[in-house]
Amino acid sequence: VGERFVEATAVRRRAAAADVWDGEITPGWDIGGNANGGYLMTMAARAMAAAAGRPDPVTVTAHFLAPGTVGPIEAHAVVVRAGKRFSTVSARLMRDGQPIVALLGRFGELAGGDGPERVDGDPPDLPPVEECHRFDVDDPIAPGFRSRLDIRLHPDDAGFHRGQPSGRPLVRGWFRLLDDEPIDTMALLLAVDALPPTVFNAMLPIAWTPTVELTAHVRARPAPGWLRCSFANRFVTGGFLEEDGEVWDAAGRLVAQSRQLALVPRS
Amino acid sequence: VGERFVEATAVRRRAAAADVWDGEITPGWDIGGNANGGYLMTMAARAMAAAAGRPDPVTVTAHFLAPGTVGPIEAHAVVVRAGKRFSTVSARLMRDGQPIVALLGRFGELAGGDGPERVDGDPPDLPPVEECHRFDVDDPIAPGFRSRLDIRLHPDDAGFHRGQPSGRPLVRGWFRLLDDEPIDTMALLLAVDALPPTVFNAMLPIAWTPTVELTAHVRARPAPGWLRCSFANRFVTGGFLEEDGEVWDAAGRLVAQSRQLALVPRS
Repeated sequence: VGERFVEATAVRRRAAAADVWDGEITPGWDIGGNANGGYLMTMAARAMAAAAGRPDPVTVTAHFLAPGTVGPIEAHAVVVRAGKRFSTVSARLMRDGQPIVALLGRFGELAGGDGPERVDGDPPDLPPVEECHRFDVDDPIAPGFRSRLDIRLHPDDAGFHRGQPSGRPLVRGWFRLLDDEPIDTMALLLAVDALPPTVFNAMLPIAWTPTVELTAHVRARPAPGWLRCSFANRFVTGGFLEEDGEVWDAAGRLVAQSRQLALVPRS
Repeated sequence: VGERFVEATAVRRRAAAADVWDGEITPGWDIGGNANGGYLMTMAARAMAAAAGRPDPVTVTAHFLAPGTVGPIEAHAVVVRAGKRFSTVSARLMRDGQPIVALLGRFGELAGGDGPERVDGDPPDLPPVEECHRFDVDDPIAPGFRSRLDIRLHPDDAGFHRGQPSGRPLVRGWFRLLDDEPIDTMALLLAVDALPPTVFNAMLPIAWTPTVELTAHVRARPAPGWLRCSFANRFVTGGFLEEDGEVWDAAGRLVAQSRQLALVPRS
């Protein structure tokens, strides 16, 4: 505990010419022994950005293939096409010679557009941070992971942990890194996968929802301060569910959208 | 005209052991000279499904890199990991030796889950097919593409083509292939990218919205008959916009969801 996110997700290029980066899944970023998806995605995205020579993830898709256990990883990243403004990069995260995450993403430099703007939506309406539910000490399946982040859930969405789900598949909360570590566009890839699953509030017989695929769109570099996050699900059907996320910065701007497809384990 | 979709998107494996499939972008599937994104995605997905040995796309992400002009293409598809129920496949569509689409997807067999179901939403409320706007002859930029499909727009969403946008970035309509060609899970990848852009109704100074990335989730094999489709946009910001789609089958089931990230050309 105390390890900064930027260090816990650092990767080093093996050689100047190689398409391989080395990193390490460090302890405490797991949910029940498997490293959090957003954590793994960030680690891979750092290698992808380095391969692209472009700093910001614009859209990144990750397919989760196998558990990420503590220990060394390799990130293989290859530029598929370098364009004028963006580069498209394909990547794999390998653990013990096996792929654990496959990714495809577009990288560029997010500097704020000068084009038309139209926003149909607002940041989630959250009570002040100190009136929200501190989601760390009481999470039995991920005490380490929760203590690495500062997440404050909307009180209306936090009852599931005492066996009182709200009945609405909605989870809203404040998010920041510990010790006010700055949140850049890479850390947004963690923010879109850090809150508890919405289905915990849905009053369905679903105890876990393994993520098949997560796509994050990053719209802007976040302003310093707390992020406001909102995740919702509408369709549990065919053995799958989606989870749509929005992340807003302290300046009230939408900085990321996400959608994941997760499995509904057969009962 | 008259060419069936299944033939227009067919691919043939080059050799039993090779990871390469040959196909051809045939005339008339283009918007202003560039093959439609859903059409290209379907062609690549056929190679990916063949590589996986699994029939249905479950989630497919496509990054659009360069225009797809009429002529021969190669699809390169490699299985990243074959699991018990799904295989993850990475692919590229090549034209003249250059990648034009990069893809990552999960393939399996969609057979209807026996798990819990919860649906918060309904198919779009559309007038009967014959009262909707037949969107083909009056589309000046894609007359060929439109005449290959049978799309009937909700009258409330169809005014943009006469210079009367609704003001709401929403496009709803019926969709089917010509001559009642059956719609399988592959054709759903076309359905999620076949209607005109929602931004045409948004009364913004945006004439075109090149797709950066499109992710489609397929939940089920559609029942025979017309599909009901709905596309909406909420955030035009930072030089990007998203477009979220839902496709419902004739039995009233959600069969696909989609989200794309598109560029807002600087004005």
